[in-house]
This record gives sequence, structure tokens and C-alpha cells, in this order.
Amino acid sequence: MQVGFIGLGIMGGYMAANLQDAGYDLIVYNRTADKAQPLLDAGATWADSPAALAPPVDLIFTMLAHPEAIEETALGQDGFLAHLRPGSLWVDCSTINPSFARRMAAEAAERNVQFMDAPVLGSRGAAEDAQLTFLAGGSAEDLERCRPELESMGKRIIHVGVVGMGTALKIVFNHQLAISLAGFAEGLVLGQSLGISKEQLFDVLLGSAVVAPIATAKRPKLEAEEYDVDFPLQLMQKDLHMAAVAAYESGAALPLGNAAKEIYRLAMRSGYGESDYAAIYQFLLEEWDVE
Amino acid sequence: MQVGFIGLGIMGGYMAANLQDAGYDLIVYNRTADKAQPLLDAGATWADSPAALAPPVDLIFTMLAHPEAIEETALGQDGFLAHLRPGSLWVDCSTINPSFARRMAAEAAERNVQFMDAPVLGSRGAAEDAQLTFLAGGSAEDLERCRPELESMGKRIIHVGVVGMGTALKIVFNHQLAISLAGFAEGLVLGQSLGISKEQLFDVLLGSAVVAPIATAKRPKLEAEEYDVDFPLQLMQKDLHMAAVAAYESGAALPLGNAAKEIYRLAMRSGYGESDYAAIYQFLLEEWDVE
Amino acid sequence: MQVGFIGLGIMGGYMAANLQDAGYDLIVYNRTADKAQPLLDAGATWADSPAALAPPVDLIFTMLAHPEAIEETALGQDGFLAHLRPGSLWVDCSTINPSFARRMAAEAAERNVQFMDAPVLGSRGAAEDAQLTFLAGGSAEDLERCRPELESMGKRIIHVGVVGMGTALKIVFNHQLAISLAGFAEGLVLGQSLGISKEQLFDVLLGSAVVAPIATAKRPKLEAEEYDVDFPLQLMQKDLHMAAVAAYESGAALPLGNAAKEIYRLAMRSGYGESDYAAIYQFLLEEWDVE
Amino acid sequence: MQVGFIGLGIMGGYMAANLQDAGYDLIVYNRTADKAQPLLDAGATWADSPAALAPPVDLIFTMLAHPEAIEETALGQDGFLAHLRPGSLWVDCSTINPSFARRMAAEAAERNVQFMDAPVLGSRGAAEDAQLTFLAGGSAEDLERCRPELESMGKRIIHVGVVGMGTALKIVFNHQLAISLAGFAEGLVLGQSLGISKEQLFDVLLGSAVVAPIATAKRPKLEAEEYDVDFPLQLMQKDLHMAAVAAYESGAALPLGNAAKEIYRLAMRSGYGESDYAAIYQFLLEEWDVE
Repeated sequence: MQVGFIGLGIMGGYMAANLQDAGYDLIVYNRTADKAQPLLDAGATWADSPAALAPPVDLIFTMLAHPEAIEETALGQDGFLAHLRPGSLWVDCSTINPSFARRMAAEAAERNVQFMDAPVLGSRGAAEDAQLTFLAGGSAEDLERCRPELESMGKRIIHVGVVGMGTALKIVFNHQLAISLAGFAEGLVLGQSLGISKEQLFDVLLGSAVVAPIATAKRPKLEAEEYDVDFPLQLMQKDLHMAAVAAYESGAALPLGNAAKEIYRLAMRSGYGESDYAAIYQFLLEEWDVE
Repeated sequence: MQVGFIGLGIMGGYMAANLQDAGYDLIVYNRTADKAQPLLDAGATWADSPAALAPPVDLIFTMLAHPEAIEETALGQDGFLAHLRPGSLWVDCSTINPSFARRMAAEAAERNVQFMDAPVLGSRGAAEDAQLTFLAGGSAEDLERCRPELESMGKRIIHVGVVGMGTALKIVFNHQLAISLAGFAEGLVLGQSLGISKEQLFDVLLGSAVVAPIATAKRPKLEAEEYDVDFPLQLMQKDLHMAAVAAYESGAALPLGNAAKEIYRLAMRSGYGESDYAAIYQFLLEEWDVE
Repeated sequence: MQVGFIGLGIMGGYMAANLQDAGYDLIVYNRTADKAQPLLDAGATWADSPAALAPPVDLIFTMLAHPEAIEETALGQDGFLAHLRPGSLWVDCSTINPSFARRMAAEAAERNVQFMDAPVLGSRGAAEDAQLTFLAGGSAEDLERCRPELESMGKRIIHVGVVGMGTALKIVFNHQLAISLAGFAEGLVLGQSLGISKEQLFDVLLGSAVVAPIATAKRPKLEAEEYDVDFPLQLMQKDLHMAAVAAYESGAALPLGNAAKEIYRLAMRSGYGESDYAAIYQFLLEEWDVE
Repeated sequence: MQVGFIGLGIMGGYMAANLQDAGYDLIVYNRTADKAQPLLDAGATWADSPAALAPPVDLIFTMLAHPEAIEETALGQDGFLAHLRPGSLWVDCSTINPSFARRMAAEAAERNVQFMDAPVLGSRGAAEDAQLTFLAGGSAEDLERCRPELESMGKRIIHVGVVGMGTALKIVFNHQLAISLAGFAEGLVLGQSLGISKEQLFDVLLGSAVVAPIATAKRPKLEAEEYDVDFPLQLMQKDLHMAAVAAYESGAALPLGNAAKEIYRLAMRSGYGESDYAAIYQFLLEEWDVE
């Protein structure tokens, strides 16, 4: 049997390559075909559509940008779900919202297909080095079915709970990440505006109790004011929207998360959407008159 | 010569005691006199007013709750500033805003008194154990004059720059602290609302790259939902106001800091002002129906 | 032919009654059946399910609380859409988001059913008195087909544009409404906290250029601090969520709308969800010590 | 006796001219002297400093941009307060915060000078046409002393209460104004992003219950996207800061006001500080791809 993989962006491309390196025979699909070339060169099979990918597999991974893309790929015209054989397992690694995960599980169940949500922690470096953490939601049996494949792409698998719970925990993670970095960026701008040098701020704040370690990881970008992308700002904004949708449904208030969501949105509108999300610093600094 | 100390609250009380333990002869004043009793029992002199405290000292520390209290104590009727001898040094350890520090320095200079701002990092435990960090703003000479006394109260002294710069850095610290903990509290509520247990959230989030270490220190309070005070929520809200004032003057935008400021304020209005600021979690959770 | 009406809450109940008063023969369905009794007493037919309501109608109105309810009613098991005859017209008067309206139109089109979104301006009084304004999205032909029925329920019909555009304008309206009233409530609390009496604030602010007229309409509730419901706070919060979803999709930033959304959410968590949304004042005032 | 007037900006210039037109003999001071020329040409006397202006007057008006400017002008080196004769009346028309007004009153009282706060409603047009509304805080006797002069500059005088209360009400007004216009601007952007034309939005929203009349007054600027200044955006941001300071002192929460404050600040940083505050629309629209 082949393993199906749909969604060969920054993350998905590395993940599929690691599956391939581990010896799995892949059949792949991506909206823009050229991203698949390295995998095809290494022996993967190209499917002309999601539907065409489904018949030869009983395990399929999706790694897509947002719920709409998943819905189109699974359920749209030429979607794969109607073409998977009964008893197949669909593992979605995208960052979505829990109720969407449950809806996909229900759609899958109608076709006798199992569904797991298994979004990942870690960005491009971790994906490349097979050091991702998977946050899995679904049954223990289904997790055992795909554990070898997950282990070839990551170093740690956390079985959070039933379908949707992996997604729930992922959303909390990115909610934290988004606030932590935007908060640090804001503090950096505040400190500079008060006359403290960026270096002194880094030296005192990074590694202290008050700042999340992610800020240390972003120091080179913040220092150079160059934002080559590990994780695009617009996807961080999307994940804050996922958090807002989940919180709306569960009844939680997210005053900081929503404030951050709008700041990232304003940054997108100033042209930072495709930069790394650390560019939120540049947006807040933007017109700042630092001598 | 005696060393003057005004402001014997949670922090100031421990700081003065450490000065005393280091052998300094103290003269003290506090708005509510009973807080001074342990120091008096150990040999300190009581001053009936800030003015009365001034004549026998050439080094005076203040550790007060907010700028208004400092202004009243230094410049009000019975204020100490008019009674300090020329050439004295006034070291203010309160958390204020930089322009207020500069204003006090100017007032002091008119009377030929030197001024340093030296706010502290660390809360009650660090104060008790003389483990504070001082963020000093002022001249190198003045810092050397009071270094022995500072070293008897803390473990580290950072000379940030001229007058106001210690305060500037302190404000950035507490801005970070306030956002980091409120952001974590919000994420904890989000996760629980989505069905993840508090313990699982602690286990996965604490120590990860996305959360500031302060959250780990607050875990016992958050677990027990008991908020015995290390640092009162209402003082954290005050410090966010200090940050807002400083940012207004310097031109920085603090969208997250101001959002957090208003959430802490709402929490104060729900009765959490005198609890530890970790109670922001309880406010956000408040009416939450966790089974 | 009968006219179908699904959703007999505060608004829908009055709207259906006005249709009936205008002589239309109604067939109705509501999740809780007792709300239908007055209409049944006046001659309407009861349908045991949305599906059962569909066959005898070629015009169906829905007035439901949120997209999920509409999706379930139209497309769920026993949904009406599969049972409407080809060429029927479905007019949805609920407040939803534009992309959901377009999705419903697409679902309808697959079954050869026409779709219009026609959400309403005006709350319970306007519904009762047939004084609603309809914001219609869809083709001019479809609008003409249902114009007589709309005119029996309202006084004004604005044809905003294609499907989804009525909804788009409705969302802007409620975004305005939510901010205007929360902003006024906040100002009222600010003024009182500064020692100005509520009456003086009403006298000077209401009718002035700086406050929206809706505040005048809410004066009796704000004066009495009693919030019998014209429009429930939790539905206002839902509409701000609809605005957030729409803005996310279109790329607009809504910093104030999202701040307001979270304040309304906090108010819901303090128990004001089923009160009129003017209770946002009570939430902000809540523990306030007004002598 | 002459009437003193300090602060000849947009507003102050027209106000002083109206005093002059009403026959009062003015002595004036302004930081930049050229603004005084029209008044001098019409017979006013120039004072070389605030101190020099004081001796020949027993009524002095100030109309300055912010508390710091007032403090410098009244109490700084060459400040007027020490030079006013006992029994004089100082009427401050600036927009400040209530506690600052009370502090100035206390400073004045020490010199046996009376103080009133009398900030104005209305922008440049109302100032030019002597159509301002004065919100007066102070004693009834003092108000009677300056009533003729106030009446020559405005059409309505509201005696709000003791010193600081005029300021309190002014702050509430501008808090409302700032939120109302930013909220409308946000809605306009939202509507356009959803495909509704700006004209249609104006036609439906303006004059409706959900939008404050100020939006109608700003329509020409919003339509032309030209923001010749009636009231500079940076002063609106300053007034929101005054509201934040007042609310901090009184204990009110201003979640919307502070969110708006930061949005106006971000707009200042994008270069809109000296435009009319209606330019908040342009900031939110900024990079928007409107076809």
C-alpha cells in the first residue's frame, strides 16, 4: 500500500520527505504541482487530484493552510473522501479549530473512514529534522495504526484525547506563541522608545523569567530586522482566528488573543503577511524615529 | 550617619531589615507606624514625619506605592526634600515612570541633593532573601556611593544609564510580566474551555518555548486557585499604567499592554485587587462551568 | 400555496404573525413547539420537521439564531432543502456572515432552489409593528417574488446587491450598534466615576453629536438599571463574531469591534447573556461604589 | 484692566479674537509669537513671557495643548502664577484631566488666586463663530465673574460642578467622540471590504440610530479622503490619554477607550498625527485594495 500525502508547503514538504526517507511509498498531491518535484524525483507517485490519490491508500495525511482548503480537498468536487476505501485512516496535521475537526470526523465516519487530528508543534527546522511534536486527537487504536509514520516525521507524540483535542491543544499553543512574541516585540519597542538599546534589552530580558524562550529563538531576526520565514505572520493571524472561533464556541473570553489578532492583521495590511511572524516587531517599530 | 528609609510595605520592610542586618543604623518612617515595629525593636529610630527623618542622614531610600505617594513624602507639607542636607543622595526604589523620576531629580537638584532611581526586580521572596536585582539610573559616582547598601539588599546591580533609565527598564520588565501571565492565564482558560485538563495544560505548556518561566513559578497558586500575595494585582495594574504614561510620552504604541491593563482593572473591580496578580486567571475563569 | 416559516423566536414570532395577518396561509416549524401555538390558533399548519414543511411551499422564510442552526435546519437530517420543490425560493432573515450566505445559496442552487439573504434592522418593537427594514441580497427577480411578503413584515426594503450583500450590510449595522452602545456605557461609567451624575450625563450627552441615537432609546433601561430584553446581549456578541469572521475573510482589521466582542463575552460570563445588550453598562459598572 | 490670554493655537486664536471683537482689551502671550500678530494688529498688547502678562490683569485665560504646557506656563520659570495679583481669576480652557485641574487650583489658592476649569465643546468652526459650549468647574461666584467674557466666546455655559468637573465632563465627551468616529471608520472599512460602496454605506448608516451625528459632519472629509484639520488626531489621542489617566485615578475600566487610544497612536506613527482625527479611517483603510 502507498501512503497518501496532500499539502506540500513549507511544513508538508519536509514531512513528506521524511516519510519517504523512512521508506514509505508515497502518492502525493499539491495545488501547485512544482512543489512535489523533489518527492517525485525520489520515487513518489503524482496524483492528478485528491480523488485520484485516494484509491491506492489506506492511510492519508493532509497538511493544509486552513479549514476551507481541507474542506475543498476532502469534500469538494474531486475531493478524496468519497474515494477512500472503507476502513482507511485520514490523519489531518493542519492547524484548524476543534469543531471543524469533529465535523471532518463525522463526514469521514459516514464513509466508514477513520479520522485523527494530529497538528504539529515546531516550525520549518523541526519539520526538516523530523523533530516535530504531534498533538493527536482520536482513538488509541487509530493512533497505533499511524504511529510508525508519525515517528518518522517527529520525535514526540502526545495523545491528547478524542477527535478535536489535538487541535484544541495546538490552538492553545499558538495562542500562547502569538501573544508571547507580540508582547515581547511591544516591550522591545517600548524600551527603545525610552532610550534603552536593543542589545541591552536582549541581554536583560532574554532568559529571564518574564519572557518566553521563543523570543530568544527569534533574536537573530529581531536583531537583523530581517524576517526570512519560519512561520508566516499571516498563518499566525489565521491561528488566532482559529482560537477566536474555538473560544466563541466554548464560551471563553480571549481579550489579549483578540487584541493580538487585530495587531497581526494590521501588520498584514502593512505588508508583513508573508514575513516571519517576528515581523510584528517591525510593524510596531515601523515609523519609529530611532536615531 | 544614619541611613533613612521611607516606605515599609511588603518589599520595603524586608529591604530595610536587610540593611539593618548588614549593620546600618536606620531611621525610618512609614505612613502606618506599626509596620516599623520590628525594625524599631531591632534598634532603628522612628521619625515622626518625612521631614523629621531628613536631618541626620545623607543617604535616604524610598520604597513607595506610586508617584503621588513619593511626591507627597518628598515635596508635600512635612516632605523630606527641603530638610536634607546639601550633597545628600536620595535613592528611590519605587516603580514609577521615567519622566517622574526626572522630575524628582530636578526637584532634588534645586536643593543640591542627588537623585537615583533604583527600582527592583523580584518580589517578596527575593526581598526577604536579599536576592533583588536593582536597575539603577543616575551617575556612576552616585551609584558607587550607595552600592554597599544596595548590595546588602540585593544580589545584582545593573547600571542602566542616566536618571530615569532604571525606571524605564523596570517598566519594560513589568509590562512583560503582566502580559506573560495574563496571556498564560487566558490560554489556560481557553484550554480548559475546550476540554483539556488543567494538569495536562501545565505539563505541556510549562517549560515549553511558548510560555514565560514566571508561569511555572505561579503554578502552585493557579493549581490551588489560592492567591496569597507575592505581588498584588492592583500594583501590577498600576505598573501597566506607568507603562502607558511612559509610552504616551515617548510615542510608543502598546496595544497589548493597554488591553492587559484594562483586564487587570476589570479584575480589580471584581475584587481581586489585593490578591496576587496570578488571580487574573480566576477572573477570566470566574463563572466558568468547569465540571 | 402555503408560505413556510421556520424560527419563531422573539423576532420570528412577530414576523410570522404579521404574514398571517396579511392573509398568508402559513406552515410553520420551530424547535420548541409551544412558540407556534398562537399562530396555530390563528390557522397556521404545524410541520413536524423542517423536511415536512417543505413540500407544500414554494417560498420559505428562516429566522434563526446562528449559522449552525440554519445549517442543521436546511441540510441536517430532516432538513428542508432536499424536500423543497425545484424553483422554490428560500429567504433567510437571520443574521449570519456573508460567506455562509453564499454557501447556503450554493447548496440551494444544487437543488435548483433560489436563495436570498434578507436580514432585518429593528428589534422586537419594529418586528411587532411590521416596521422592520429588510437588507436584501440576491437577484432582483427573486426580490420581486417575495416583496409582497416582505412588505407585510416591514416598512422598507433595501436591495443591497447579490447574495451575501444584505448580510454584509447587516453585519456592519450591528458592528456599529455594538460599539456605539458599549462606548456610551463606558462613557457613562467614566463620568459617574468622576463624580458626574447619571442624569447630568444623559442630559448633556444624549442628542449631542458625539453619541448615537440608539443610546437615547436605551435611556429608560440604563436609568432603571433593568434590562428587559429587546435584543439579547448574547446575540449581539454573536453578531460581533459574525463580523469578526467576515472581516477575517475579507482582510479588514476590526480592533474596536473585537475589543467590544470580548467585553460582551465577559459580560455574558458574568450572567448578562440573556439580558438586553444595554446591560453592558451594568457589567462595566458592576462592583462600582456609587454612593 | 486688561484680559490676559495665553495659547493662540487654532482654538485659542479664534477665542481671543472674539474677546477682542467684544471690546475687551487683551494682553497676550504665545510660545510662537507670529500667531499673535492679527490680535496685535487689532490692538492687543504683547507680553514677552507669561510672567510679564500677569501684572496688568485680574482675569486670565489659558488655552494650551496639554498639562505639561500649562504647568510650564503657570509654574515654570517665568510662569504667570507668581505674578498674578491676589484675588485674580485664572480660567483654563484646555482639555486636561480632573486631578490636574485640582492641582492647579491648589497651586493658585496658595497664591490667593481663584481657578476655574472651563474646557470647550466644539472645534474650529464653533470657535471662529463664538458658538462654543463651556463646561465650567468652579464656584458659582467665579463663574459669574467671567461669564461676560465666556459669553463673548461661546453660546452656552454649563456649570458642571466644583473645580475639575468641567474637565471631567469634557473628557467624557471626547472619549465618546473618539470611539464614535473610530467605530464608524472601522465599520466603513468593514463594509467596503465586504463589497459595499462607500456611498451606499454613507446613505444607509448616516442619520440612522446606530451612528453618532459627528460622522455626518465628517462625511466630506471621509468622502474626499482629505483631512484638513478641524481637530488634530494627535490631540484626540492626547484626550484619550487624559481619559485613561482620569479613569486610572477613579477606578473605571475603559476597555474600548484604551483600544481606541492605541489605534490612534498607531495612526500617529503612520503619519496622521497632524491630520484631522477623521484620518483614522485612512489609517484603517490604508493599504486596502479597493478596486
